[in-house]
Amino acid sequence: MPTFTLDELAQRFGLPSRGDAATAVSGVCSLSPGKPGRLSFLSNPKLRDELADSAAAIVIVAPRHADAVRGAALIADDPYLAYARIARLFDPEREFAAGIDPGAFVADDAKVGEGSHVGAGAVIESGARIGAGAYIGPGCTIGRDAVIGDGAWFAARVTVAARVVVGLRCRVQAGAVLGSRGFGNARGPNGWEEVPQLGSLTIGDDVEIGANTCIDRGAIDDTVIGNGVRLDNLIQIAHNVQIGEHTAIAACTGIAGSTRIGRRCMIGGAVGIAGHIEIADDVVLLGRAMVTGSIARRGIYGSGLPLDDAREWRKTVARVRRLGRFEARLQQLEKHLRLSAGSQDDDHSDII
Amino acid sequence: MPTFTLDELAQRFGLPSRGDAATAVSGVCSLSPGKPGRLSFLSNPKLRDELADSAAAIVIVAPRHADAVRGAALIADDPYLAYARIARLFDPEREFAAGIDPGAFVADDAKVGEGSHVGAGAVIESGARIGAGAYIGPGCTIGRDAVIGDGAWFAARVTVAARVVVGLRCRVQAGAVLGSRGFGNARGPNGWEEVPQLGSLTIGDDVEIGANTCIDRGAIDDTVIGNGVRLDNLIQIAHNVQIGEHTAIAACTGIAGSTRIGRRCMIGGAVGIAGHIEIADDVVLLGRAMVTGSIARRGIYGSGLPLDDAREWRKTVARVRRLGRFEARLQQLEKHLRLSAGSQDDDHSDII
Amino acid sequence: MPTFTLDELAQRFGLPSRGDAATAVSGVCSLSPGKPGRLSFLSNPKLRDELADSAAAIVIVAPRHADAVRGAALIADDPYLAYARIARLFDPEREFAAGIDPGAFVADDAKVGEGSHVGAGAVIESGARIGAGAYIGPGCTIGRDAVIGDGAWFAARVTVAARVVVGLRCRVQAGAVLGSRGFGNARGPNGWEEVPQLGSLTIGDDVEIGANTCIDRGAIDDTVIGNGVRLDNLIQIAHNVQIGEHTAIAACTGIAGSTRIGRRCMIGGAVGIAGHIEIADDVVLLGRAMVTGSIARRGIYGSGLPLDDAREWRKTVARVRRLGRFEARLQQLEKHLRLSAGSQDDDHSDII
Repeated sequence: MPTFTLDELAQRFGLPSRGDAATAVSGVCSLSPGKPGRLSFLSNPKLRDELADSAAAIVIVAPRHADAVRGAALIADDPYLAYARIARLFDPEREFAAGIDPGAFVADDAKVGEGSHVGAGAVIESGARIGAGAYIGPGCTIGRDAVIGDGAWFAARVTVAARVVVGLRCRVQAGAVLGSRGFGNARGPNGWEEVPQLGSLTIGDDVEIGANTCIDRGAIDDTVIGNGVRLDNLIQIAHNVQIGEHTAIAACTGIAGSTRIGRRCMIGGAVGIAGHIEIADDVVLLGRAMVTGSIARRGIYGSGLPLDDAREWRKTVARVRRLGRFEARLQQLEKHLRLSAGSQDDDHSDII
Repeated sequence: MPTFTLDELAQRFGLPSRGDAATAVSGVCSLSPGKPGRLSFLSNPKLRDELADSAAAIVIVAPRHADAVRGAALIADDPYLAYARIARLFDPEREFAAGIDPGAFVADDAKVGEGSHVGAGAVIESGARIGAGAYIGPGCTIGRDAVIGDGAWFAARVTVAARVVVGLRCRVQAGAVLGSRGFGNARGPNGWEEVPQLGSLTIGDDVEIGANTCIDRGAIDDTVIGNGVRLDNLIQIAHNVQIGEHTAIAACTGIAGSTRIGRRCMIGGAVGIAGHIEIADDVVLLGRAMVTGSIARRGIYGSGLPLDDAREWRKTVARVRRLGRFEARLQQLEKHLRLSAGSQDDDHSDII
Repeated sequence: MPTFTLDELAQRFGLPSRGDAATAVSGVCSLSPGKPGRLSFLSNPKLRDELADSAAAIVIVAPRHADAVRGAALIADDPYLAYARIARLFDPEREFAAGIDPGAFVADDAKVGEGSHVGAGAVIESGARIGAGAYIGPGCTIGRDAVIGDGAWFAARVTVAARVVVGLRCRVQAGAVLGSRGFGNARGPNGWEEVPQLGSLTIGDDVEIGANTCIDRGAIDDTVIGNGVRLDNLIQIAHNVQIGEHTAIAACTGIAGSTRIGRRCMIGGAVGIAGHIEIADDVVLLGRAMVTGSIARRGIYGSGLPLDDAREWRKTVARVRRLGRFEARLQQLEKHLRLSAGSQDDDHSDII
């Protein structure tokens, strides 16, 4: 592991520091209990009390917490962001040897840019182009005429289908599938008939895609993932979906076909989003939200009945199912007391 | 791209046409805005107004919309189905060179049929048989004694486990796993013990299976997927499940063990289906449905509380949780007014 | 298939038997209808009547059902567990030839233990160590300095990232990803910035991991999977999660970051568990449960509104949404009758 002193880090990242300039760190640690010779950070003010007992050699803190640090401190307006940047110094994943592994299968007319690595068992098909400084891990398959931008980092066993275009500096985790056939089927006289998926998939710059996530190619036009989008693991993005720049989506979420998601949205885990709808910029969807229609305004949205003891839960479900009877009984009481001459609530059963 | 004239398409597909017989198309486009030299279709009557402005060279329409087409038209009773068939002419995925890539690993006693392709990095294990005219993409692994029918198209990195049988003309997207071990565990004195999964998986003809979808092999008898079934991406099908012919299932749906699904069902995305139940033919399950018991009759079914503003949602959840108190208050009122001598609603808490 | 007699099985597994000692079986079958020359079991007492008609040659039963067996019987206190153990005799997956396939790519300084198999197309990177008697199937990728314990069985196309440690006798199904980068992102001035994930993943002994399941590596400390854990297919386990020993989790479940799950929990399919919470030992979560907070006590928990006819479902959703109005009407009645002087129920909208 490389080692850096407080002084080196302060200068390299332009941060004020406190404490012994020679304090050295060779890795990171949690704030509590912390480890000697390691770097940590305080981002959540609720954990401020942990500063006093942390064994971390250097802690990155906001200015108002600098006094509470026991050892050495780096002072940053956004300690988590500063941590993210400094911690990269200790990330062994960032290093790889340039060159095509003898066990890789690269088509004669495929191109691999300068300084790039192609791992053993990887397959680069005819006409594909890999940019410079890219890491294509073992077992990846890059389809015909696909384009992968400079600085890509594909963990292992990533599949990029034919003609897909991936921007600069994209990081893709193992098992992801980029550009699979969209789920397009037409009813024929003898069953489903396949609708060719002739669009492609376009992925912007600085996109991250998680393990075993799937993004389908478009039916006619392309599926489009904007710059800076963050996709976690096991996400499904159907054909023709468009995702705006810097939107982040947590694991296990599915987005049905032709839906358009705005910019800077934050979408929780296991959210289900219907097809052919539009979601505005800056929308926050809480985990497990069920989205059946468009969302026109920024805001925070959720759905679902959270957990309960199973016995209580079953009672609740039974009560919900007899809400119609509740309502009738309530109306009868009102009628009896002549309290309500108004019209009965209608069912609004067209809302879904 | 190949090019076809209106006249050629009309003859080839047996469709009436209108307009200049020499109108040529070399690809497809969306109806709006459309593209010159491309083919489109009108399937949804609500989009009829787009016909007037579409730049598409040829549009496939139903007879009653033929007059509204600006350029050339092909006339079909089911324009989407006609489009599906014609668009295949422009699908570059359909072409591949026969032969076993030198980078493929094919066991000496495995068989690969005439006209089939096996991609680089693919592994065909001992005793496996691949039919004629099949495309086995790069990085696929076909287990011992597995059988893949004629005309298969396996995108890349598809895994077929030992002894699995796949019918004719099946299309499988990247990362799918066919015949993984079912989740069978018995409690032993020191923790879970594995229950061997000695059944296999049988897949019919003309089945489509999406990216990273998993289908487990049976515990004793086989898991069975009927002819013409359509499975989207990231679907889980547990051991011993049976899926009837021509049923279509959207992405992220999970089906627990030993459940039997009927024929021609339409199952939405992210549906969860419990184990050991039966679902009748022609059942439609809306997206995110939670299915805890058998469904005996065809029909449309759904579940769940759709999205709301998070503040409203939390209020709704709190109200649902005090439904028991609502009910008690209602009953007290009724008692007070001597309106109800009837029995109190019981909890029906056995419904789940 | 190997063949065993009743007498051989009785002696080998220390079980009492009834019937002709020479009765031979060469495989397993379902109890109903059963197959001649095969072994079955009765675990669910409700199926006792099937014993009379079963064609199975030998049935494993509890002592109290021994009289009802038509043919030969093996008698065990836990027939399912006894079946699990005996059935392994017929599992062809358990046999493999030791040796490194010539089509495997094993780094010069990687180590593969005695009696282990490495399949074609598998990649073992620098510094990785595979234990003895392990099966590493075709297309697996084992990252730098990863450690895989003795007796591992990795089906095919399993990815183990750098530095991950996997215990003894772990079984991993195809497509699983162990040690992918956690989903850590910090907001920067120009969009998300990556937070390096410098922890690793530690997996105990005797763990089973399903097809296409993903387990992320930790951000700072390790993600930890305890001994004897059972994970089904398509599960997502985020960074820093800890799962206690012998917990079993069904398919499609997702667990967000830093959550700690107790020992011996049983977690159903498609459950969603929020991040940064704790779940006690011996908790049972029913399928599709939505867990938004910690669970301090063992017990059975569920959530969600199960299926209904779509028309009824829409009415129910509408009624739930006007619960606030119900409540107001109820209160007005009470006020009118001076029944309730108590305070109005508040919204408890802080529960989620």
